[in-house]
Amino acid sequence: MSEFRLHPQLAADTLPVASLPLCDVLLMNDANYPWLILVPRVAGVSELLDLIESDRTQLWREIDIASQVLREQFAPDKLNIAALGNMVSQLHVHVIARFKGDPAWPKPVWGAQPAKPYSATEIAERIDALRTHINPSGT
Amino acid sequence: MSEFRLHPQLAADTLPVASLPLCDVLLMNDANYPWLILVPRVAGVSELLDLIESDRTQLWREIDIASQVLREQFAPDKLNIAALGNMVSQLHVHVIARFKGDPAWPKPVWGAQPAKPYSATEIAERIDALRTHINPSGT
Repeated sequence: MSEFRLHPQLAADTLPVASLPLCDVLLMNDANYPWLILVPRVAGVSELLDLIESDRTQLWREIDIASQVLREQFAPDKLNIAALGNMVSQLHVHVIARFKGDPAWPKPVWGAQPAKPYSATEIAERIDALRTHINPSGT
Repeated sequence: MSEFRLHPQLAADTLPVASLPLCDVLLMNDANYPWLILVPRVAGVSELLDLIESDRTQLWREIDIASQVLREQFAPDKLNIAALGNMVSQLHVHVIARFKGDPAWPKPVWGAQPAKPYSATEIAERIDALRTHINPSGT
């Protein structure tokens, strides 16, 4: 099997935040919502079912970590968690902090609004804050 | 804490298929897509994070079961798995078989098309087939 490489579309849409034992944690470059994407560093996998069981268990753990980070940092009204992959088949999981009154509420975020890229300052601040919250959790 | 009761909106939109150790498995009454919904029978929970850890582990297991059933029975091009809950806050997980050329492809299904209710015959057949696939798996 070939080596893992992040899909170019995901690379274009996101900014790297952290590397957990299984997944790269990416920040969607869309200031409309605090929006993380987890990408398991496993080549050629597009469905959760296709991960080996220990990786699947680890992925759920890392989804919990990402959810907890967003909850602590943003106190959202709702978390949205989804593995879709109709456009980009490389397995990736969205973890999104949603607020009553955010630009898409109560609809799902995909396709609801054009992405609103962060400014350079916002990016630096947000990624810094996310890293501070993610790293202390250890795994 | 009060007893678990299925949210009236979920009850109105779906048909009961099976009862797994943690979740009720429901069929979305929308013939546009083979679409299951898992609802943990735990009262007052709206986020995955709020389940106790053993229930969370069991939920992932049951998501795998539902995914496997849809894959075996429909051989979809992609599975979509999501916990959103912006409209109905009772914790529920969508597991949807997607096809290139289905009415919403490649967009997410929510809000894409009006639901297309099954006929009585279709309901009976589909639920029968799903039950046959779900029950042999045991847990």
